[in-house]
Amino acid sequence: IKMKLPDAHENVPVEDMDSSLGLSPSFDGPSNIDSRELGISKDPLLFIQLNELLGWPQALEWRETDIPQIILSIPLYHRWMLFEEKLEVGAGRWSAPHVPTLTLPSLQKLRSLLAKGLVLLDCPAQSLLELVEQVIQAESLSPELRGQLQALLLQRPQHHIQTRGTCWGSAHPKKASHDENIPLKEQGQNSLRQKLPPGAEAAAVLAGELGFLAQPVGAFVRLRDPVVLGPLTEVPIPSRFFCLLLGPPVPRRGYHEMGRAAAVLLSDPQFQWSVRRARSLHDLLAALDIFLEGVTVLPPGRWDSTARIPPPKCLPSQHKRLRSQMQEVEGLSRPRRARTEDRDSHEPHKPTPELQRTGRLFGGLVQDVRRKAPWYPSDFLDALHPQCFSAVLYIYLATVTNAITFGGLLGDATEGAQGVLESFLGTAVAGAAFCLMAGQPLTILSSTGPVLVFERLLFSFSRDYSLDYLPFRLWVGIWVATFCLVLVATEASVLVRYFTRFTEEGFCALISLIFIYDALGKMLNLTRAYPILRPGSPAYGCFCQYPVPGGGLRETGRDLDQVRTDDLGLVNASLLSPPECTRQGGYPRGPGCHTVPDIAFFSLLLFLTSFLFAMALKHVRTSRFFPSVVRKVLSDFSSVLAILLGCSLDAFLGLATPKLLVPRDFKPTLPGRGWLVSPFGTNPWWLTVAATLPALLLSILIFMDQQITAVILNRKEYRLRKGAGFHLDLFCVAVLMLLTSVLGLPWYVSATVISLAHMDSLRRESRDCAPGEAPSFLGIREQRLTGLVVFILTGISIFLAPVLKFIPMPVLYGIFLYMGVTALSSIQFMKRVQLLLMPAKHQPDLLLLRHVPLSRVHLFTAIQLACLGLLWIIKSTPAAIIFPLMLLGLVGVRKALEWVFSPQELLWLDELMPEEERNIPEKGLEPEHPFSGSDSEDSELMYQPKVPEINISVN
Amino acid sequence: IKMKLPDAHENVPVEDMDSSLGLSPSFDGPSNIDSRELGISKDPLLFIQLNELLGWPQALEWRETDIPQIILSIPLYHRWMLFEEKLEVGAGRWSAPHVPTLTLPSLQKLRSLLAKGLVLLDCPAQSLLELVEQVIQAESLSPELRGQLQALLLQRPQHHIQTRGTCWGSAHPKKASHDENIPLKEQGQNSLRQKLPPGAEAAAVLAGELGFLAQPVGAFVRLRDPVVLGPLTEVPIPSRFFCLLLGPPVPRRGYHEMGRAAAVLLSDPQFQWSVRRARSLHDLLAALDIFLEGVTVLPPGRWDSTARIPPPKCLPSQHKRLRSQMQEVEGLSRPRRARTEDRDSHEPHKPTPELQRTGRLFGGLVQDVRRKAPWYPSDFLDALHPQCFSAVLYIYLATVTNAITFGGLLGDATEGAQGVLESFLGTAVAGAAFCLMAGQPLTILSSTGPVLVFERLLFSFSRDYSLDYLPFRLWVGIWVATFCLVLVATEASVLVRYFTRFTEEGFCALISLIFIYDALGKMLNLTRAYPILRPGSPAYGCFCQYPVPGGGLRETGRDLDQVRTDDLGLVNASLLSPPECTRQGGYPRGPGCHTVPDIAFFSLLLFLTSFLFAMALKHVRTSRFFPSVVRKVLSDFSSVLAILLGCSLDAFLGLATPKLLVPRDFKPTLPGRGWLVSPFGTNPWWLTVAATLPALLLSILIFMDQQITAVILNRKEYRLRKGAGFHLDLFCVAVLMLLTSVLGLPWYVSATVISLAHMDSLRRESRDCAPGEAPSFLGIREQRLTGLVVFILTGISIFLAPVLKFIPMPVLYGIFLYMGVTALSSIQFMKRVQLLLMPAKHQPDLLLLRHVPLSRVHLFTAIQLACLGLLWIIKSTPAAIIFPLMLLGLVGVRKALEWVFSPQELLWLDELMPEEERNIPEKGLEPEHPFSGSDSEDSELMYQPKVPEINISVN
Repeated sequence: IKMKLPDAHENVPVEDMDSSLGLSPSFDGPSNIDSRELGISKDPLLFIQLNELLGWPQALEWRETDIPQIILSIPLYHRWMLFEEKLEVGAGRWSAPHVPTLTLPSLQKLRSLLAKGLVLLDCPAQSLLELVEQVIQAESLSPELRGQLQALLLQRPQHHIQTRGTCWGSAHPKKASHDENIPLKEQGQNSLRQKLPPGAEAAAVLAGELGFLAQPVGAFVRLRDPVVLGPLTEVPIPSRFFCLLLGPPVPRRGYHEMGRAAAVLLSDPQFQWSVRRARSLHDLLAALDIFLEGVTVLPPGRWDSTARIPPPKCLPSQHKRLRSQMQEVEGLSRPRRARTEDRDSHEPHKPTPELQRTGRLFGGLVQDVRRKAPWYPSDFLDALHPQCFSAVLYIYLATVTNAITFGGLLGDATEGAQGVLESFLGTAVAGAAFCLMAGQPLTILSSTGPVLVFERLLFSFSRDYSLDYLPFRLWVGIWVATFCLVLVATEASVLVRYFTRFTEEGFCALISLIFIYDALGKMLNLTRAYPILRPGSPAYGCFCQYPVPGGGLRETGRDLDQVRTDDLGLVNASLLSPPECTRQGGYPRGPGCHTVPDIAFFSLLLFLTSFLFAMALKHVRTSRFFPSVVRKVLSDFSSVLAILLGCSLDAFLGLATPKLLVPRDFKPTLPGRGWLVSPFGTNPWWLTVAATLPALLLSILIFMDQQITAVILNRKEYRLRKGAGFHLDLFCVAVLMLLTSVLGLPWYVSATVISLAHMDSLRRESRDCAPGEAPSFLGIREQRLTGLVVFILTGISIFLAPVLKFIPMPVLYGIFLYMGVTALSSIQFMKRVQLLLMPAKHQPDLLLLRHVPLSRVHLFTAIQLACLGLLWIIKSTPAAIIFPLMLLGLVGVRKALEWVFSPQELLWLDELMPEEERNIPEKGLEPEHPFSGSDSEDSELMYQPKVPEINISVN
Repeated sequence: IKMKLPDAHENVPVEDMDSSLGLSPSFDGPSNIDSRELGISKDPLLFIQLNELLGWPQALEWRETDIPQIILSIPLYHRWMLFEEKLEVGAGRWSAPHVPTLTLPSLQKLRSLLAKGLVLLDCPAQSLLELVEQVIQAESLSPELRGQLQALLLQRPQHHIQTRGTCWGSAHPKKASHDENIPLKEQGQNSLRQKLPPGAEAAAVLAGELGFLAQPVGAFVRLRDPVVLGPLTEVPIPSRFFCLLLGPPVPRRGYHEMGRAAAVLLSDPQFQWSVRRARSLHDLLAALDIFLEGVTVLPPGRWDSTARIPPPKCLPSQHKRLRSQMQEVEGLSRPRRARTEDRDSHEPHKPTPELQRTGRLFGGLVQDVRRKAPWYPSDFLDALHPQCFSAVLYIYLATVTNAITFGGLLGDATEGAQGVLESFLGTAVAGAAFCLMAGQPLTILSSTGPVLVFERLLFSFSRDYSLDYLPFRLWVGIWVATFCLVLVATEASVLVRYFTRFTEEGFCALISLIFIYDALGKMLNLTRAYPILRPGSPAYGCFCQYPVPGGGLRETGRDLDQVRTDDLGLVNASLLSPPECTRQGGYPRGPGCHTVPDIAFFSLLLFLTSFLFAMALKHVRTSRFFPSVVRKVLSDFSSVLAILLGCSLDAFLGLATPKLLVPRDFKPTLPGRGWLVSPFGTNPWWLTVAATLPALLLSILIFMDQQITAVILNRKEYRLRKGAGFHLDLFCVAVLMLLTSVLGLPWYVSATVISLAHMDSLRRESRDCAPGEAPSFLGIREQRLTGLVVFILTGISIFLAPVLKFIPMPVLYGIFLYMGVTALSSIQFMKRVQLLLMPAKHQPDLLLLRHVPLSRVHLFTAIQLACLGLLWIIKSTPAAIIFPLMLLGLVGVRKALEWVFSPQELLWLDELMPEEERNIPEKGLEPEHPFSGSDSEDSELMYQPKVPEINISVN
């Protein structure tokens, strides 16, 4: 089956085709998946509608009138854009869009009817009337029938139009009148119209069974210029195609099914492409045959043909189909096509230009600056979009939440050397500076778990050896900055390609577990600080004792709380509350005086409430309730809302729960230190040299934490077009490291989660989607302004202290638990751990499991678990401070796995390291079948669009 | 297309066909959905497997050896029973069963290959060797090719057999040897074999591309007698069909796809039926054409042909397809068929025989006894099945849990007039008696929410008017029994047909809300009993004061707790705990002495823990984790496990939480009363008459509660074959009412939830299902023994008191909340309430919404909400005791709804009342389309198998 060559002017040049496959920077228009995705045909979207005519012969009646009045018109029973929607007549609403299903006989009958019928290509009709006249003239009908048919076709159909809130059907069918070219008022108000992209065209299919016809009438018309066919289509857009399928009544609603078949055909991008260019009936039938070759057939015994299949999340690519057809038609040069495809498939194995070694000192940094400099003005201009406002609000709240929680934890960990105020100040200064200078300004700097863990270890080390913490820390910072600069100079960032998912997951899992462990541990500590009183406790009394002459206080002068429970003797006592007692000159006595009851359990309740509430809100996003805007807000601000709920619960009951400590004035949390850290303090001079050792460990940690995040943020899936700057980012982090160390502020690196949330809030998506089509991702609004504004706002928030002091600590611990659990559950590793508990029968149909034996998957998971256990053990020993080295060891373990697993298995279980990519033969990447040249198996990948692995909801 | 008449002996008589459509009582065999569901053909299940041969011409090599060694055999790539399973070669396991998808060209090529190829019907071959020889002889091949082909076909294929735990592939293909007829050892161990029903047959499809063939070789063989074809099929069962599709290499794995097409064809019940009876090639091709007519076609542009479609929950009925074919083939008498179908479709509108009025006094009761008497012996014999043991255990635990919780609540509500002991005793006596006598012995009697509510109202009424409760209650009971007997005599039970879903839902929702409200209310009461101490409280001190001469106790002689906080003066004090203080002769003084701290919050924690744990366990059933047995146990015993968890948490912390009160001795909870209630007590004589009024209300309540449950339990979906006994059940309830009133025990009626659980635990299901097939429901083990044993065990459990007293009340309140929430969320009403919060786009594709406009659905829901609000208001006023009347009023409201909604709408939103059923035309029940004679729309019902509306997890 060959198609004829279309006109030369319709033939899109090949160059155009290639460029349109990439993302053109200025493209921001509404979605038309066909034209955009295909790139090849810039054909407009087609809105197809099937109007059905129903009637049966009641000879006496219809003979008397001019128009066959008895013919019911229940049109617009179905409509198509990408998927089929069916009008539920009883419920008066459109069904959910679904994949259309056809019967084979209807397609075959349609083919034979078209073959016998009238095909008008490039019909010059300018109105419905002209069109109908032309069609009717060509049919071999008696003049009487012709008149009736014409009147019938010009009848105004009864539309079912859904406007913004309500839906109504228009009046009953009227007689044909002079206004058949004027669209109805309701048509103009149709909310569907706003969803259609500009330039969309319509296709009208009229099908039905008419009692007065003796033989079938079939016509297919392509209009030369699209024309609004009056009230024929639901939305008043110009129609390009018109298809008429009428005939005498047949069983099983034959013409209805044929009409559906014609509409489904027209909705197929390949058929549409062909039929727009068809020059004869033969072309039309050939396109139909190509369609038939491509259909999927479901057996009748195992599938109910009336079941509605929901639209797939990801449409199969039309590239291959359309290209192969174009090739057949136009004889596209074979080598060129092969080259293009090769490039596509090779690309993932080659390092991105940002990660190629230049071989010169600071060569990568220079390249980064050169790459980013031209974009600098646009980094501010691109921010002028309303979406950026909401992104600022969202990320600001997330940043502040992070600053509060990490500030609280750091204050705990360092006994006030770092506190909430330092956290706010440092976040603001470092973040803003990074946004202005960095290579990837979408990154949000923040305190991160690993650095927090390290700082805690450093603090306990310096406490154990009675060191002056801040000066020691300053030297560590100085050395870290130096090491990082060396790493920048030597272009060490290109090594990030050795950080495969195995390393990322080990890193992420360890940090998440530390979060969870810390949150639970701190809650348990609270129950120790506020002990629970049991009935068996010796006594929980408290009373106020006054020093009276000749009695009391004799034997218990100092140790007021250590009274034995049975021998107080004669005292002058009252039951005043302890503070009141002290004020009146008495002494509160008894173990009950310092016990605050109910706090432990109430804290536990607050902890659980904020955790569960945050988790629940996060899941609101995928629930069916509420409009999507509300769902998005609730889930985006889940932790903010959970904190608010915890605070109000606490305020409502007014119990003396432990609260967040915030300084009242703008001065360092630690009393008696200035803003600048003295370089030596009370430490011996040689400590400046000894600091190189922890600095070396911290450098490893900073490098890994920073670069793993950078790799994730710069993934190809995000379609960033301004390029990354791995070296420049590390350089900025090093400089900021120095600054914060001098000022005694926390250290900052890129925070994966919050940066991903930042990017997510700046997604550019196609807005107006056809029903059933998922909005397609166009890219990210890459700019520096949102981050900058966020950090300026964070700086201003330092003056929030009067509000912050109402936040109970258990609520913050709950949020920490939430962050840990969310981060942990987002990695593929946890999915594989879950597989261990699932019977094979119930396991989800993961691609991974299709290609790797279950025992090998379990082995890989077990190795990861063992590594994690080892890391945990090291973290719990005095050698904890060397844990960054151990994280680096994960890369070595991963390298050693090459001896255990085949490259194919590693490809599915992990990613490949640079050398492995070279070793694996191109063929081997498709381990499915020796005959894998076919496209029978590989397109299953289509169904699982690649998403970022670590996709933790932030804040 | 017509089929030839098959042999007479294969033609199943029509009588046989009709009877096999019903449920034959003795049928308990494994599942073969085709033969059983179809009823018509008793053909065995077919196990189909596709072995693929792959090879390409390497001329030099294969010429040297006798067998073409280079030909790889990766057989058994796919297998079919009902659905397709694909071998994931890389992962070494079978994919999940899925609906097979084919391409149209493969079917067309298969057709032409079969048309040209060899078709052997009723081939007498007795072994693989004979079969291969016969096939090869018939092909027009050169002798050399013939030899090669024969050797190739006798080659032992490389199986992939999954045994109980492990899977392995057998050794590499061997040369043909003398053992080609002996099944491999692994084949025998194949766990799949146990899943296949006895008598299952195999079909082997061999397809592949062979380089040495110049032209296609196609053969289709039906063996006269099924033969085990050696190691050809994965399971060593006799093969009936053999299909060979070989040819020179073609692009797109043509022969592989043709092989799949052949296998899918064979797995189609209709094609199978035809091909078993085919007498010529023509029959075969005609069957293929019929298959093609029935296939569902999915367009290529909107569907990825490689996507795996999971098996539908409910297979489309093959009745219609097969019957119409049989009719064509055999000329089945048209009237007979029409009659059968009419009966089927009319049945739901006619009352069941149990609910038809006889018109005689006690006529229904007599009929019930007559109907049930013949089954009496079998009611005990049918219980001899191991399933009954687990049912007894499960229902026993549920009953005991219910007895404890309701006993605790009744004790609360009646100030000890009914307690846990009465609850156990009454449950045991009434339940056992009911199981022995009742019409529907699967019913479990229990205290129910409505009766509990009424009893509480009755108690507060009699307390308000200072009546002697138990004697008053005795008279209420006597009158209720009398009224119920009148209802039995007048056959009032036939009125249950007016209890539509509207009434059931109102009833259920009210009771659930009362449960939820009570559980929360009781928790709040606890915080009042154990107040939370705040920092602002005046003082929470407590100390021990001794009466010393000349000091203390002067001014505070009596009112020890009412001391002012600031003036105690000189006292002789110690800090002993209050009980110790009292023992030593002192007086505990201060407000803190009687306050038990931490109890309020700990109770709240226990409450939430048991509630959330029970909810979580209930959802384990549908999770992916754990084997199904574990999941079932965890979810069935969710409340028992939640109680255990709560108790251990409580025991671990050892706090003085309020516990369940149980008497230590076997005597009534109320001190000073015997087992028989005195008929008058201190009440005036006229109260015996006045008791008729509450008795009337209670009778309505008992009637509704009992009969709504009975209607639900006797629904047709449960396929009960021993019939119901509405009148007999009510009679038993009346008699037991009298007995429990005399003994002062709680009143009992049928409990919906626990009875449903009882039936559910006695389900008979087809055990061995083909992969992808849901087990089919065969009926319920109807007998009296399980219930009887459960209640005997409950009676024995009266001596559990030493254990029961460790159960904290907050845990029971948590379980009550769980019961209320579960019951509420199970009714359709709640689904419709949820719709109010959902944007139309996200609403689930309910059948209801396809047929009724959303605004009408919302209106119906709003009316139900209003009714519920009204009921709630009445329940909260002093007129609460008349709430049974209000429930009856729901029937009236439902009747009035006829003026608001059309019968069609009511049919979808509710059920129809008897008169409405008569009014609605048969046609009107299918409001879809004037041309609804087609089967295009109605089979969508198939996708939502009818399940009981109220399906609350018990206990």
